[in-house]
Amino acid sequence: MVFANAGTLGTLPGRRDALVAHLTRRSSALAEIGCLAYEVGVNDSEPDTVFVVELWESAEAHRASLQLPEVQASIAAARPMLSGEFGGFQFDVVGSPLRD
Amino acid sequence: MVFANAGTLGTLPGRRDALVAHLTRRSSALAEIGCLAYEVGVNDSEPDTVFVVELWESAEAHRASLQLPEVQASIAAARPMLSGEFGGFQFDVVGSPLRD
Repeated sequence: MVFANAGTLGTLPGRRDALVAHLTRRSSALAEIGCLAYEVGVNDSEPDTVFVVELWESAEAHRASLQLPEVQASIAAARPMLSGEFGGFQFDVVGSPLRD
Repeated sequence: MVFANAGTLGTLPGRRDALVAHLTRRSSALAEIGCLAYEVGVNDSEPDTVFVVELWESAEAHRASLQLPEVQASIAAARPMLSGEFGGFQFDVVGSPLRD
């Protein structure tokens, strides 16, 4: 069952675009481990926040990704940009009006 | 610029699955007006909430969709299932690690 993670990551003042650059760096590993979509963005009404929407083949694929050395290194590199404020939600996808 | 809407819709007790069925009914109109993805789901830890993640060709395409008679009728039909609690966030997509 496809799993969705929609999240907000608060950044230290002025670090938003650096975090966007970090999160959008090309990674072939993500697709290999079951990441179907990973959209990163901004909203100028919240200038110190980075937004992400991720779709994974399963909740287990998402969980397993967090243990990969490449992903753990990426999280460690992001940490100095983060304010510590996180938000969002996770869910199991059950359908879409765009497909049968 | 691709626009993302990630939202939570609170439902009246026991109405979650009816709202899921309503939101996932096949709609060819959505793709025609610029909807790229519309994933609907649930999380059993919040049993009276429906979760959606939508991607649109642009923020304008999303705004325009809300004026369509078909979409307005769908919103009206959903209203009796809703608790009135909404959450989530919107953003402009600036990149993805899955593509250059």
